[in-house]
Amino acid sequence: MNAMTEAPPEARLLARAAGATMSEQLAQRFAERIGQRLLPPGARLPSVRDCAQRHSVSPSTVVGAYDLLQAQGLVEARPQRGFFVRTAVPAQRGLPPHANAASLSAPVDATALIRSMFQAQGGRPAPGMGTLPEDWLDPGLLQRALRRVSTPAAAAGWLRYGEPAGDARLRAALSRRLGDVGIHAGPGQIVTTIGATHALDIVSRTLLQPGDAVLVDEPGWAVEFARLARAGMRLLPVPRGPDGPDLAVMEALLREHRPRLYVTVSVLHNPTGCSLPPAAAHQVLRLAESHDLTIVEDDTYAWLAPPHATRLAQLDGLRRTVYVSGFSKILTPQWRIGYLAAPPALAERFIDSKLLSTLSTPGPLEQALAWCLEQGQLRRHAERVVLRLDAARARTERLARDAGCRFVTPPAGLFGWVDVGTDTEALAQVLLDDGWLIAPGVLFHATRRPSSLMRVNFATAQDARFWRHLRMRVSGT
Amino acid sequence: MNAMTEAPPEARLLARAAGATMSEQLAQRFAERIGQRLLPPGARLPSVRDCAQRHSVSPSTVVGAYDLLQAQGLVEARPQRGFFVRTAVPAQRGLPPHANAASLSAPVDATALIRSMFQAQGGRPAPGMGTLPEDWLDPGLLQRALRRVSTPAAAAGWLRYGEPAGDARLRAALSRRLGDVGIHAGPGQIVTTIGATHALDIVSRTLLQPGDAVLVDEPGWAVEFARLARAGMRLLPVPRGPDGPDLAVMEALLREHRPRLYVTVSVLHNPTGCSLPPAAAHQVLRLAESHDLTIVEDDTYAWLAPPHATRLAQLDGLRRTVYVSGFSKILTPQWRIGYLAAPPALAERFIDSKLLSTLSTPGPLEQALAWCLEQGQLRRHAERVVLRLDAARARTERLARDAGCRFVTPPAGLFGWVDVGTDTEALAQVLLDDGWLIAPGVLFHATRRPSSLMRVNFATAQDARFWRHLRMRVSGT
Repeated sequence: MNAMTEAPPEARLLARAAGATMSEQLAQRFAERIGQRLLPPGARLPSVRDCAQRHSVSPSTVVGAYDLLQAQGLVEARPQRGFFVRTAVPAQRGLPPHANAASLSAPVDATALIRSMFQAQGGRPAPGMGTLPEDWLDPGLLQRALRRVSTPAAAAGWLRYGEPAGDARLRAALSRRLGDVGIHAGPGQIVTTIGATHALDIVSRTLLQPGDAVLVDEPGWAVEFARLARAGMRLLPVPRGPDGPDLAVMEALLREHRPRLYVTVSVLHNPTGCSLPPAAAHQVLRLAESHDLTIVEDDTYAWLAPPHATRLAQLDGLRRTVYVSGFSKILTPQWRIGYLAAPPALAERFIDSKLLSTLSTPGPLEQALAWCLEQGQLRRHAERVVLRLDAARARTERLARDAGCRFVTPPAGLFGWVDVGTDTEALAQVLLDDGWLIAPGVLFHATRRPSSLMRVNFATAQDARFWRHLRMRVSGT
Repeated sequence: MNAMTEAPPEARLLARAAGATMSEQLAQRFAERIGQRLLPPGARLPSVRDCAQRHSVSPSTVVGAYDLLQAQGLVEARPQRGFFVRTAVPAQRGLPPHANAASLSAPVDATALIRSMFQAQGGRPAPGMGTLPEDWLDPGLLQRALRRVSTPAAAAGWLRYGEPAGDARLRAALSRRLGDVGIHAGPGQIVTTIGATHALDIVSRTLLQPGDAVLVDEPGWAVEFARLARAGMRLLPVPRGPDGPDLAVMEALLREHRPRLYVTVSVLHNPTGCSLPPAAAHQVLRLAESHDLTIVEDDTYAWLAPPHATRLAQLDGLRRTVYVSGFSKILTPQWRIGYLAAPPALAERFIDSKLLSTLSTPGPLEQALAWCLEQGQLRRHAERVVLRLDAARARTERLARDAGCRFVTPPAGLFGWVDVGTDTEALAQVLLDDGWLIAPGVLFHATRRPSSLMRVNFATAQDARFWRHLRMRVSGT
């Protein structure tokens, strides 16, 4: 453990590699990170001295590496300020002319967080991850379900296109599931999608035009910010805390900008873990009513929430709320199954958008999920996960507090929203070098700003070594 | 057979149903068809006399039905002209302000053709279908492949997100497959998608901004027109015939409108069946080069084409061509697997768009497809299908000519492009009432225009009754 904290893996890695100079190896390492956008466009490289110290190389090695990166067009030198990752010129091309400076700042990190989800695999638990650890999930259930639907009769059905709205049996099962949490949606109001991400994409491409204003939670889910900004929408952040969205800010934005949509996570909000109090939900719906606002309620963490949690779609009866959820968090991220439940007048329009984006959705996996739901297997699995998460949360919370961190919202669900007392964007780069992935606060804001907050995954941050290491780095910076 | 042609199923249907007046039943039938957009917005309902005759009811019953439809807001009466399906007001909302009248006319039928693909199932073969008949496909292969990948080891892999670009083994197999048709693309240039539809959607949302001009084949694939028009693009149709696109028109459009993209089907073009002659391919690439145009080559019917067919991506070495294909036509439409192969500089940008639209793609099905490709099972299946299609084409061609139809392009592949000598949009409604789905020419044009052409599926139009029936209706109109 001491070896881990005191000798950064890069030093060993650089020393071991052959056939390339130390500068080339170091440049290569930065180039990879820039390519993966773990060092996003506009980010500042460490100072030559810091970098040399961290990687146990001489300053001239670092200078050589930075020169190489500059020659490759990956970074630029700014006099008196240092080296910065270049804003990728081609990547800007896709942005509509409406996108202003404020909305541009969101997608800079657009896919960094998502990509990190794919890269954090296999190694040690990543406290910044957005998912449960793999060993909390149930591969046996997945295997049984898929074998169960791989019958000759089912295969005969795969020879034709699936229903545009999605597998009928799955939609019936989802309708019953929604009924269990108090949301009344017939199968005809349900449209299955390629994960909740696709559902959010369908909703925004159906209801919005470039230049439209959209209310979003701040802090909130960076991928949604990125998608909306890329499509040319104007993001209007509404501060979100334990009491719900700041209603005064929301009302002022509604009056001034007439947004068409409010995209929000009511229950176990990402990253704060807060759930919307019933009275706040009522007020949000009243505002929506009087300003003709449609609400997109992203219930990604539905299966981790207590059954009595209040959803906007429940109070509102799916009149001006579109409900979105999925199974990537509780069952498997690789089957890519999500869904939306919509007011009847909107369901057909969402199906049209689905047809134009993916035609339909994969039948075999929807049938396998329907089986999991019908057998009650998923519900029992979720109950076990919730119990385990309760224990993990208690442990992680204690470790975090012992490490000097402060929870700015009451710990709940999968995520804690933690103040570590130093800028977490810089800290994230340092910890990444040390092999720990964290999710800095900057990723959850629609406009770039320094933040001493980070999102911590209660399930993947139970390793005491992480918190000791974090404390050391924070006191050392 | 006489019973079928002389007593339309509606008459029997109307007579049998209970609990509703004849007018209500007839109105219900039209309402359904309007809902499914088989009667698209702007379409004219049959005259009262024709409708009464066709459904064997009294004119007053028809008047009652039309009144009901008007009261429901589904149709409107235009003095001296008759009843027309109303242009659905809410459906217009999603259209960006850039969409002008010309591009608006495309999505009017936007999803009619697609939806018909889902509705034409189970009944008799539909000559207008866009797919092979179900019994030409191989459900046993699908079942074996999915069981093969439903192992404990594979299931353990489903607990994490798949690679953003798609399953690595599948991309390696696709890279080899592309090599077989002369296209050299490394696995790193390949991105898997939810069917070819999703690949086309990813390309257009990455490379285009609302208001951009796009070259399309005319006639061409209506779903692509619809997607582009819905996203606010200006469609520039280029006439397409046996010699390829009209190069003079293309060059003039390039000079005047500076389009960024040309979306085309080189091989076994839908609906004409034509393949691009090598010399024309060369000229198209020269034009693309000198006007900085990117080409999207949609090779949906790849597996039905002769191995020596010329692809633009082959000549061009994937420098300014993005290649798109999929497995819905040859293997199964319900697994929803497609892919794109891109110039290296574009691949990463397409992956970003994929992340924002669906995050990743379903692992188990990609793994099962990889198995089908690796075992050579898919190639052998495709060879059998091609032989069977050759025989079907010969038979259907003869039947069509005997029925007085004329092929305007040389019959090849799955589709024939046929002149029946009367307006096929009106004919399509009549034949639909009689139980036969055809694909009228209007569906393949970017701008609405009367057409005496229709697309015929060689595999599903081998029923002599269809051609006799068509001949009767054409001579009767």
